[in-house]
Amino acid sequence: MDINILLFSDFETLDVFGPVEVLGRLEGYKLRYFSVNGGTVISRQGTEVITEKLEEADFSGILLVPGGQGTRSLVNDNVFIERLKEVAVKSTYCLTVCTGSALLAKTNLLNDKKATSNKRAFEWVKSLNTNVNWQPCARWVVDGKFYTSSGVSAGIDMALGFVADRIGEGKAKEIAHSIEYVWNLDRDNDLFAKLEVVK
Amino acid sequence: MDINILLFSDFETLDVFGPVEVLGRLEGYKLRYFSVNGGTVISRQGTEVITEKLEEADFSGILLVPGGQGTRSLVNDNVFIERLKEVAVKSTYCLTVCTGSALLAKTNLLNDKKATSNKRAFEWVKSLNTNVNWQPCARWVVDGKFYTSSGVSAGIDMALGFVADRIGEGKAKEIAHSIEYVWNLDRDNDLFAKLEVVK
Repeated sequence: MDINILLFSDFETLDVFGPVEVLGRLEGYKLRYFSVNGGTVISRQGTEVITEKLEEADFSGILLVPGGQGTRSLVNDNVFIERLKEVAVKSTYCLTVCTGSALLAKTNLLNDKKATSNKRAFEWVKSLNTNVNWQPCARWVVDGKFYTSSGVSAGIDMALGFVADRIGEGKAKEIAHSIEYVWNLDRDNDLFAKLEVVK
Repeated sequence: MDINILLFSDFETLDVFGPVEVLGRLEGYKLRYFSVNGGTVISRQGTEVITEKLEEADFSGILLVPGGQGTRSLVNDNVFIERLKEVAVKSTYCLTVCTGSALLAKTNLLNDKKATSNKRAFEWVKSLNTNVNWQPCARWVVDGKFYTSSGVSAGIDMALGFVADRIGEGKAKEIAHSIEYVWNLDRDNDLFAKLEVVK
């Protein structure tokens, strides 16, 4: 199965490459990097990544959408949101990191579903779609095929949670060990929600 | 000051983009991506990154060297090791992640210095240069201008440690908070050394 990573200008680097490190260790899954128009996409941290054109993706795969500064304008880009909706509808699973959930919320596919986002950007994300059941204290949230995580590093915990759900907790722990990562495996344990005033 | 990231085929993705996420949040530092010959470099996880040619770097900057499967052949590539040595000698600071320290050890610049590496690859790394004072239990190690970290995610802790040393612990904690990362700020606290049999 393909893991389709949807990049855009000014995406947050670790939002992508934390989950990529985890999901790249699964057998039988292929990581592919896309953008709406294909070509080079530059992250917030100046990383130039070569992407394929989104229409070349097998939409039935697993979709991964990062957050980052680039989401601030993309939430108002109707063409992007329509393209995202098209692939998210057909995806077997859809994972967002940080303010990637803001983009997904704009497609209305999260309406009446539980979701979370970066705790520092939480009020902004909430304001974009009040029909989502936003969770103010969650490292990551699962609702049906939708996985949404809190900020940046939370994407690693969520990706490990996804592995645990699909393959087993043992496999997730094995991957965490191999990347020498201390996995927060309790998705309701959100230290950073407690450090911010979110409600 | 430039942060010169030296990429090579089959580098480990998170070895690079963990520290990049941290160091990219410092003002006055510029992230630049290099490889010996320039052009596209593909990570172990299939990420195609565009790089500049190493000879175009300002060698006086901060050098970041990842590890990964690609190091297994590169330790025997004398041309690569010579080029690495040339830039590492001139760099103000030199940071390696995971088996990146194997490459640096081959330049002999770590001789009689303390250093560490991935705990699962530790015996192999040690065997490459027994004149290094290898530390079997350390999340990361600092000796003069050389910072070496344990496996993959340890690079994030080391990068935060580097920020703490250069700018202050407050700044490192602020960055950890902004990326919602639980920083292991005790470099001698190496959970994964305890899980492996390393000596």
